Amino acid sequence: MTPYPRFFILKGDNMINIKENEKLNMLNHSCAHLLAHAVKHLYPSAKFWVGPVIEEGFYYDIDLGDKSLTEEDLPLIEKEMKKISKDDKLIKRLEISKKEALDMFKDDVYKVDLISRMEDPDTIISAYQQEDFIDLCRGPHVNSTKELKYFKLLKVSGAYWKGDSKNKMLQRIYGICFDNEEELNQYLLFLEEAKKRDHRKLGKELDLFSIDPYVGSGLILWHPKLSIVREEIELYWRKEHRKRGYEYVYTPHVGMSNLWETSGHLKNFAAGMYPPMKMSSKDELEDATYYVKPMSCPFHVRIYKSRLRSYKELPIKYCELGTVYRFEPTGALHGMLRVRGFTQDDAHLICTEEQFKGEVNKLIDFAIEINKTFGFDNMKVYLSVRDLESKEAKYIDNEPVWQLAEQTLEQILVDRNIEYKKDIGGAKFYGPAIDMKVLDSLGREWQGTTIQLDMNLPERFGMKYIGSDGQEHTPVMVHRTVLGSMERFVGTLIEHYAGAFPLWLAPVQLKVLPVNSEFHMEYASKIFELLKDNGFRVEIDDRNEKLGYKMREAQTMKIPYSVIIGEKERDNNTISYREFGKEDTTTVSVEEFILMLNKKISDKK
Amino acid sequence: MTPYPRFFILKGDNMINIKENEKLNMLNHSCAHLLAHAVKHLYPSAKFWVGPVIEEGFYYDIDLGDKSLTEEDLPLIEKEMKKISKDDKLIKRLEISKKEALDMFKDDVYKVDLISRMEDPDTIISAYQQEDFIDLCRGPHVNSTKELKYFKLLKVSGAYWKGDSKNKMLQRIYGICFDNEEELNQYLLFLEEAKKRDHRKLGKELDLFSIDPYVGSGLILWHPKLSIVREEIELYWRKEHRKRGYEYVYTPHVGMSNLWETSGHLKNFAAGMYPPMKMSSKDELEDATYYVKPMSCPFHVRIYKSRLRSYKELPIKYCELGTVYRFEPTGALHGMLRVRGFTQDDAHLICTEEQFKGEVNKLIDFAIEINKTFGFDNMKVYLSVRDLESKEAKYIDNEPVWQLAEQTLEQILVDRNIEYKKDIGGAKFYGPAIDMKVLDSLGREWQGTTIQLDMNLPERFGMKYIGSDGQEHTPVMVHRTVLGSMERFVGTLIEHYAGAFPLWLAPVQLKVLPVNSEFHMEYASKIFELLKDNGFRVEIDDRNEKLGYKMREAQTMKIPYSVIIGEKERDNNTISYREFGKEDTTTVSVEEFILMLNKKISDKK
Repeated sequence: MTPYPRFFILKGDNMINIKENEKLNMLNHSCAHLLAHAVKHLYPSAKFWVGPVIEEGFYYDIDLGDKSLTEEDLPLIEKEMKKISKDDKLIKRLEISKKEALDMFKDDVYKVDLISRMEDPDTIISAYQQEDFIDLCRGPHVNSTKELKYFKLLKVSGAYWKGDSKNKMLQRIYGICFDNEEELNQYLLFLEEAKKRDHRKLGKELDLFSIDPYVGSGLILWHPKLSIVREEIELYWRKEHRKRGYEYVYTPHVGMSNLWETSGHLKNFAAGMYPPMKMSSKDELEDATYYVKPMSCPFHVRIYKSRLRSYKELPIKYCELGTVYRFEPTGALHGMLRVRGFTQDDAHLICTEEQFKGEVNKLIDFAIEINKTFGFDNMKVYLSVRDLESKEAKYIDNEPVWQLAEQTLEQILVDRNIEYKKDIGGAKFYGPAIDMKVLDSLGREWQGTTIQLDMNLPERFGMKYIGSDGQEHTPVMVHRTVLGSMERFVGTLIEHYAGAFPLWLAPVQLKVLPVNSEFHMEYASKIFELLKDNGFRVEIDDRNEKLGYKMREAQTMKIPYSVIIGEKERDNNTISYREFGKEDTTTVSVEEFILMLNKKISDKK
Repeated sequence: MTPYPRFFILKGDNMINIKENEKLNMLNHSCAHLLAHAVKHLYPSAKFWVGPVIEEGFYYDIDLGDKSLTEEDLPLIEKEMKKISKDDKLIKRLEISKKEALDMFKDDVYKVDLISRMEDPDTIISAYQQEDFIDLCRGPHVNSTKELKYFKLLKVSGAYWKGDSKNKMLQRIYGICFDNEEELNQYLLFLEEAKKRDHRKLGKELDLFSIDPYVGSGLILWHPKLSIVREEIELYWRKEHRKRGYEYVYTPHVGMSNLWETSGHLKNFAAGMYPPMKMSSKDELEDATYYVKPMSCPFHVRIYKSRLRSYKELPIKYCELGTVYRFEPTGALHGMLRVRGFTQDDAHLICTEEQFKGEVNKLIDFAIEINKTFGFDNMKVYLSVRDLESKEAKYIDNEPVWQLAEQTLEQILVDRNIEYKKDIGGAKFYGPAIDMKVLDSLGREWQGTTIQLDMNLPERFGMKYIGSDGQEHTPVMVHRTVLGSMERFVGTLIEHYAGAFPLWLAPVQLKVLPVNSEFHMEYASKIFELLKDNGFRVEIDDRNEKLGYKMREAQTMKIPYSVIIGEKERDNNTISYREFGKEDTTTVSVEEFILMLNKKISDKK
């Protein structure tokens, strides 16, 4: 099973993880109390649930009765926080018994709930008090509110009490706090930049894709422009795979339940699958249950098993851009980055034990090369191994093979001198993996390449090959994706390039802009046709508008090259071009221009 | 809705339709009685249901108790038929009352069932008698069994009484009868050739695809070799579409029920859809029902509707190789030709009324060009119109638009001087169509291109555009496929080419055969690498086997070119090649060879 590459932004080395930094953790924790304190001043009936520190700051879940907060309410709360901070309120630790605590908070259902869960009646509970505000807390905290100066409230959202949709919806306010002004400003700048690059925002502005409540949650409609980007990537992907001896296969998007019973997915992964389709509702003689596929592996296995295999054929490498469907709660969905339907750039390698190490090495090379093409020059490598403390419950039982597999993967990384971290517990139930994450231009980390050993399916499906000894053997199977999924990878690319795709991927590569739509139109049209005939994706702006206006629009649409056609160009049989984001204009012959463009495209620039 | 192109072999002009030929119809009808007569001799307890004439001869459904017939039983029955034929039995018509008939057949439940269904008690029933065999029949028949000389029993299968799977399984024997020996032999030769070309047989022999009961009925697993064929076709298809201003889109394979409610499919097409998926079984807050898509139209419509459209953007032409799923009874499935999961080469044209005629003309040109590429030079054109007798029940109600639409399509064919037949009742409920069927190398007719006007979806989905008058207008929508579906088209191609794909499509294009795997291996390997580097799909046979043996195997696998490398070739720096199916060998320089191959490939030969 090739895993669903989940969406998360891990902090890169140059980024700060609030939760893991002792000082910042304390600051943010105290700042959460400061927030609650301010809210209490502004909304005296407010009741408070929990306010934890997270990787990116803190939040607090608050019951404001019927009141729903909006982003507009945040400045007011911030103002009150600043006031309390300036007032230099001392933060005092209290230690009380469970009984005292229950007494102190007897009117607060949330606190009573928290306190009641502490089983030991003799437990000592700590609380922190600043002026008129008191809250249960393990601490530690800063000594005075005046230490909390460089903070910002970031957003507000609804959150069910205890995460259960049957409970009351609370108001969750997010914020972050730093040690000094510079760090805060740097972070706010980063957020600003990330917001500009948000693929959902750019997707709308550049007419790239839509998610349509009428169609379904987590399902992407690829508009024509983004489909071009995807098609170019797929073409490149297919070519690189063929070059390396991969064989493309096409398999269905639905399959009978016995596939998923044999694979173990109905047992281990049912929650992640779409609901069943009962064929008996169509034809009472047909008793089968079908599922849309959450992964393509069993289909590839069945192709392998469609005839007898010899060791001479191995390694067999099946690849497929296989569209799969997985159930995710709507709340977890996020643009193209976390979806329900996605196309994995999937492959399954079936090889002998002797071939395994060599194939993994080739996969690492392959992944590095492909990722570099998209400007992902830095990758962070993880060795995903078992968590030995939960080993019996979570992993298939074959200790010697596990040990050998984990060692072999680690040895490969060591031999290549690749820096890696161990991701304890990151192994799948069926085997360990090497995961390679890319860093984008903002230093954010995205999951992409995964190389997983499968110690499960070959046994379960009874995969065999006839060895050179004439005997039956069970092959080794590797699952892998290089890009992850088309949806997430292209969504990431939108953010990585801030919507300005490089020439080879750009939906519209060139825009021809006649300076005067009357005098220069004939020559401009000639150039336009010539560029089109040369296979470029080109548009012409024949509107009777000023050049500056047309140019700005071409920049807004992030078109790599604007081709300017005026008197000088017409008379000298040349063109002038301006590259996206640059200020200068270059004049060349059209032949030179075409040569330059073709070179860039063949270099995947 | 782009229709599911159903599988059927219509007889081409040079073929005979038994049912529609008066003389042959009578011969075959009488031959069915001859068959029953012979069966009665061989299996005295046999009971007979019905024995109709069909396009390709006749069959008879027979109750043989517990006995199941196999193909091996047919020669014996044929022998008995020949004996009765030789005996020159007169065939007599009897006319009896319903009461007499019931009396005559009182021990035969099948005959009693037939007779009881005749409501008029005074009806006169005809029966035909030849010697000791008597059967109810409307006739007419030939005068004597000796007129039935040129017949053949073709196959036997099980068939439920009245087609209902709850009833008893009867034995259905198929046969055909001709007027003279020549026609019979010609037909048997055709059957022989068709059998050799059967894509299911070739699919197995050439390792092209499989249908796996473990995966599900009617679902195709495309093995690596056939996936290459498909990929080449898809590349060509995409390129030709881009050239003509089509925009590719990617849409999901599942969608919420409201899409299919709005489109009218849940009302008109529910039987053809896969069973529903109830999301509430995953999350009680999510009440939606999803379906795997039986067609892509609603998704394309939603992309169109994702923003406001102006007349300046029209025509918009969305295309997609969209994989859809439709429920078909297992009994109706047939290899790749009639399946449950298939990839339509789908497109939707959205245009103004003024653009409609021009767009249809372009579509006809497009379809002719694409089909010619695959050697389908002859097409039969049908104008699919309403059956006016059932017009109210079956078609959406908009008489003036229907008339205009049917006339417009007809006028297009007339103006182009295209010969066509009217397919009365062939229109979809939402509009008329032009259907273009190809004739394969055996003269068999296959459905492929369809161009359908949709008078339904634009209204139902509220599709609009802003016209030059600044007002909202409803666009015209055309559905079309050129190939039909990848599954059926490629299945047809296998039969059309008898598995010997032309160079540009062939999974393996070249096989390098060293005459002696020791002496010529070095040069052979050099040539192999050179051909591979030039982008050809090439294999080398390095086994220590005789050239003749290797050559025969390359022919069995229908590889377009065998490249022979011996002493002469090595010493002169040349290669010799033999084309598939030919006897002669040509010696050329490798550069010449590559030039020739590239020319062929770029010509799609």
